[in-house]
Amino acid sequence: MSAEVKAAVARYLDAVAGGSPAAIAALYAPDATLEDPVGADLVRGRAAIEEFYGALAGAKVSTELLAVRAVAGHAAFSFRVTTDAGDQQYVVEPIDVMTFDADGQITSMRAFWAPGDMVVTPA
Amino acid sequence: MSAEVKAAVARYLDAVAGGSPAAIAALYAPDATLEDPVGADLVRGRAAIEEFYGALAGAKVSTELLAVRAVAGHAAFSFRVTTDAGDQQYVVEPIDVMTFDADGQITSMRAFWAPGDMVVTPA
Repeated sequence: MSAEVKAAVARYLDAVAGGSPAAIAALYAPDATLEDPVGADLVRGRAAIEEFYGALAGAKVSTELLAVRAVAGHAAFSFRVTTDAGDQQYVVEPIDVMTFDADGQITSMRAFWAPGDMVVTPA
Repeated sequence: MSAEVKAAVARYLDAVAGGSPAAIAALYAPDATLEDPVGADLVRGRAAIEEFYGALAGAKVSTELLAVRAVAGHAAFSFRVTTDAGDQQYVVEPIDVMTFDADGQITSMRAFWAPGDMVVTPA
């Protein structure tokens, strides 16, 4: 069961790196919620979630899983997201918490990070 | 605000290493909840929380913060707990999620880890 959850986390990070908001949103359950960063307004439903990830469309993004802890239906994981914006790279290492339904779809996502956690370096 | 949350996380890890269940429980709000590991029955209230940490009394425990992401009132952090049981060491690296009240007391704790995440080595 935790292996299924870990596989779902891997699919999510691959999709984020893939850069297709629709493909990312498809990993979410239709009525899923998203809170990114924690404390921000809740994004609810797959259409709104696809719009949330719209900022990624066309961006050069890579992701790397740093650590994952999973139990049935729940995961917490830290990962690195590197966004290449031409002359600058943006690197942030959030800790995300997700819940999953029986089909492995994401039912909720909460991302723990603050703007001050982002590192900007010349590419 | 996130600095206060990070300080509260550091106090918690110090208290766990200190090995006094009462001192750990004192970091929690009176009506706090604890879920460790995620999926286990909820432990509610400071007395029950002190009892939960009773297993630590007298144990040789060290803690090390690996990563912390904090926003006002919320933290997610990964850390290493090493328990020295004489001829064996138990090492586990959970990811914990905590909420805090305005006084910096822990109002909820959820620990993401599974028994399979524990590593046992000769001391």
